[in-house]
Amino acid sequence: MAKTEDDKSAPLRPVPRLPKGFRDIGAAELREQQAMLATIRDVYERYGFEPLETPAIEYTDVLGKFLPDQDRPNEGVFSFQDEDEQWLSLRYDLTAPLARFVAENFDKLPKPFRRYATGSVYRNEKPGPGRFRQFTQFDADTVGAESIAADAEMCMLAADTLEALGIARGDYVIKVNNRKVLDGVLELAGIDVASPDDAARRLTVLRAMDKFDKFGADGVALLLGKGRKDESGDFTPGANLVGDAISKITGFLSAAQGDRDSAISRVLPTIAGNERAAGGMEELRQMSDMVRAAGYGPDRIAFDTSVVRGLEYYTGPVFEAELTFQVKNDDGQIVRFGSVGGGGRYDDLIACFTGQKVPATGFSIGVSRLQAALASLGKKSAARLGPVVVLVMDKGEVAAYQKITQTLRAAGIRAEMYLGSAGMKAQMKYADKRGSPLVVIQGSDERAKGEVTLKDLIEGAKAAAAIKDNKEWKEARPAQVSIQENELVSKVRDMLARHEA
Amino acid sequence: MAKTEDDKSAPLRPVPRLPKGFRDIGAAELREQQAMLATIRDVYERYGFEPLETPAIEYTDVLGKFLPDQDRPNEGVFSFQDEDEQWLSLRYDLTAPLARFVAENFDKLPKPFRRYATGSVYRNEKPGPGRFRQFTQFDADTVGAESIAADAEMCMLAADTLEALGIARGDYVIKVNNRKVLDGVLELAGIDVASPDDAARRLTVLRAMDKFDKFGADGVALLLGKGRKDESGDFTPGANLVGDAISKITGFLSAAQGDRDSAISRVLPTIAGNERAAGGMEELRQMSDMVRAAGYGPDRIAFDTSVVRGLEYYTGPVFEAELTFQVKNDDGQIVRFGSVGGGGRYDDLIACFTGQKVPATGFSIGVSRLQAALASLGKKSAARLGPVVVLVMDKGEVAAYQKITQTLRAAGIRAEMYLGSAGMKAQMKYADKRGSPLVVIQGSDERAKGEVTLKDLIEGAKAAAAIKDNKEWKEARPAQVSIQENELVSKVRDMLARHEA
Repeated sequence: MAKTEDDKSAPLRPVPRLPKGFRDIGAAELREQQAMLATIRDVYERYGFEPLETPAIEYTDVLGKFLPDQDRPNEGVFSFQDEDEQWLSLRYDLTAPLARFVAENFDKLPKPFRRYATGSVYRNEKPGPGRFRQFTQFDADTVGAESIAADAEMCMLAADTLEALGIARGDYVIKVNNRKVLDGVLELAGIDVASPDDAARRLTVLRAMDKFDKFGADGVALLLGKGRKDESGDFTPGANLVGDAISKITGFLSAAQGDRDSAISRVLPTIAGNERAAGGMEELRQMSDMVRAAGYGPDRIAFDTSVVRGLEYYTGPVFEAELTFQVKNDDGQIVRFGSVGGGGRYDDLIACFTGQKVPATGFSIGVSRLQAALASLGKKSAARLGPVVVLVMDKGEVAAYQKITQTLRAAGIRAEMYLGSAGMKAQMKYADKRGSPLVVIQGSDERAKGEVTLKDLIEGAKAAAAIKDNKEWKEARPAQVSIQENELVSKVRDMLARHEA
Repeated sequence: MAKTEDDKSAPLRPVPRLPKGFRDIGAAELREQQAMLATIRDVYERYGFEPLETPAIEYTDVLGKFLPDQDRPNEGVFSFQDEDEQWLSLRYDLTAPLARFVAENFDKLPKPFRRYATGSVYRNEKPGPGRFRQFTQFDADTVGAESIAADAEMCMLAADTLEALGIARGDYVIKVNNRKVLDGVLELAGIDVASPDDAARRLTVLRAMDKFDKFGADGVALLLGKGRKDESGDFTPGANLVGDAISKITGFLSAAQGDRDSAISRVLPTIAGNERAAGGMEELRQMSDMVRAAGYGPDRIAFDTSVVRGLEYYTGPVFEAELTFQVKNDDGQIVRFGSVGGGGRYDDLIACFTGQKVPATGFSIGVSRLQAALASLGKKSAARLGPVVVLVMDKGEVAAYQKITQTLRAAGIRAEMYLGSAGMKAQMKYADKRGSPLVVIQGSDERAKGEVTLKDLIEGAKAAAAIKDNKEWKEARPAQVSIQENELVSKVRDMLARHEA
């Protein structure tokens, strides 16, 4: 490809390239994705959610700033000015647009309002391996429901969705926590969670707690104290809490480890005396009772003190769908696959518009992350066969080949006439590259007799592997059959049926 | 909703609103759209095209400027700068990204490369009724095929797609023209089509020709001459051609009117002596022969001199899928429904990157326009029933109601427990608003006996219409049945089966 810089005498041409963090998705991955989205949609519909689509572009002030990267408030979002100078942004998730939609249409909607949505979201962030600036989310939300049953339902929805996609029980767990409990623990550690002055420290502490799965109690203790240096020597500044405060938090985090069934009872002493935490624990207990009554044991939905979730706007239960089976990471280490989605309750978000509290809860799936998980479990549907290719043996007879092609298509058979200008050999290569199961050949002698030849490329490849001798090959002409043109559809169907079983 | 300007004492809150030209799409329309896209996808797959998805954001220089609005070269596209100050744009169609993809991956692709794509495109234009700034296209393209057979195939694809969607033969026509013929006619009218000096005039003339369907020969003659004043008094400046040049063009436009089968032979004399036009006519004749041989008569695919297509980059055949049935427009006039898609050959677009000619042709559907057409033909699938709603009669027993709900869902039945906090009457209203076919009711007496009540809302509404007397109603309790809890799934299925037939 000619670079514009290279050659001063050549006309100035743009270099065909994508901006960093964006990617093209090819046929095989798209087909897998479509099948996956259809399965998710089925489960969400079964739960009574209705589809809604909002546009990719919204007013910047309407989207607000609820990204995890609160320390970079002007980044994270793609923004630009409209002709009337108002700022527009590309949506960075599907929740902020939902809040706008509900506030705008509140009186018309059934209450509770239950919708699902899927689509691309955009993050103006530094891309990395497996981290893109455009990616797909699949969300379900219940708006206008104060009941903790709505949160319990989100967890069951998540579990059912993963199982519907073929992820075995035991290979996943929906981990549940509650922001009220976390804030209670922070209060016990001496942080004023309601005060704007302590907001930055609260965020540092929550982020440290989020790392419990990764670094354990000792690592988190460093992040809560003076800071932590990683293997590469990079230093993360800490929250500068004192020893007693630190051990309150790590004690809470550690208490839930081990047997999931009794985790709640083990955690209770670590938060004794804090009213906020007690309220959160009561909600967790209620959720636990509900999902157990509906048949979802702690192997599927379980309390976990280390679930924080990055978004600022959560106010109560938070949950995370984690895949527990092991994979090799990019550095060759064996690790748990990890999170493929999550969500929680956000009772104050819609009040940003209306001034009135509208309780809401939701769950969001990271589509490509989940697709990667299915791929690593070998959950791939069989690759689709390519089209039947009708070869062009005689360029003057294109209309005749086109007619053969349309006859196949009209019968519902995936087919195409070769549309390039190359010869027989290149046409066979093309059919091969397209994954065609068979080609249709008609030379002038055959046309005169009203015949066509069908060549089975899959059987042919097997036969070619078995037959060593070129002469033997020519005599046998394996996987090739001459038929009458009026038998075309039925014979092609027979041949395809062999490979589609 | 509180406007931020209205009340100085209230906290400053954003007004929930969408920017002009953007819209939300609700459940019913989305479900119709999904069904429609699935049908289009089936036809495109049957033709051997493979799916490809490119991102919404590309480098501005890579997308180029190929919008119809060449007179507003800096508008039409949403653009913004990346962190490295390079300009990015939202795609305005699916063809420019395809050209980038092909140029970037040329060596890896099978030749010809045949792909389909669907997705949102964005136009930074003045919105109007039915004219949005984000809309969905569905494209198929064959890249690397010089053969006119590839263009003929696009026309057959368009015809098959419309019929697969239920549009009857006779209600549509795929109109075909050729840019070479148009340029030949322009040459006959004295315009140097290869000269940059005449580029603006060429565009004015092509736009005037595009209006033949709307204004007829006389109207086009004005636009080709001194200009045309419309009913409202607005004046469109003309191309300032002289009388002889004007009549050459209107003669050409008029010649194809009437019987479609012999249109080519009627047009030939009007372009006599121009080589460029003769080449284009030969291509049209070849396309015509091919589609006729494949069984597509002039009632489905026909030559039409007035097809121009707005995009600059077309180089050969151009086509337009027109729906010919009549509808009322916004002003109450009876008009043809008109275009729902189109396309053509663009042999020079990929050369923008590579410097080498890569012949290509494609067809694009305007998804919402086509969906509007199907709606006006009454081609709606039956509205989906709402979920079964399990009422919450006793808030202390939410776990029991949740279990009933999960039992229904596990059996594949669309169901939800009422998640709001309102009483019985409001819950029934909610079920009604959701379009629920039936509700499940369990009071404490029933729970003690292991029973539930099913209330058929559809039958109930019919009965309510028939029964006038309140007392009679209470005694009959129509469409309501008490069952054992263990019969729940089978009885609900029976009730649903009545309404789904």
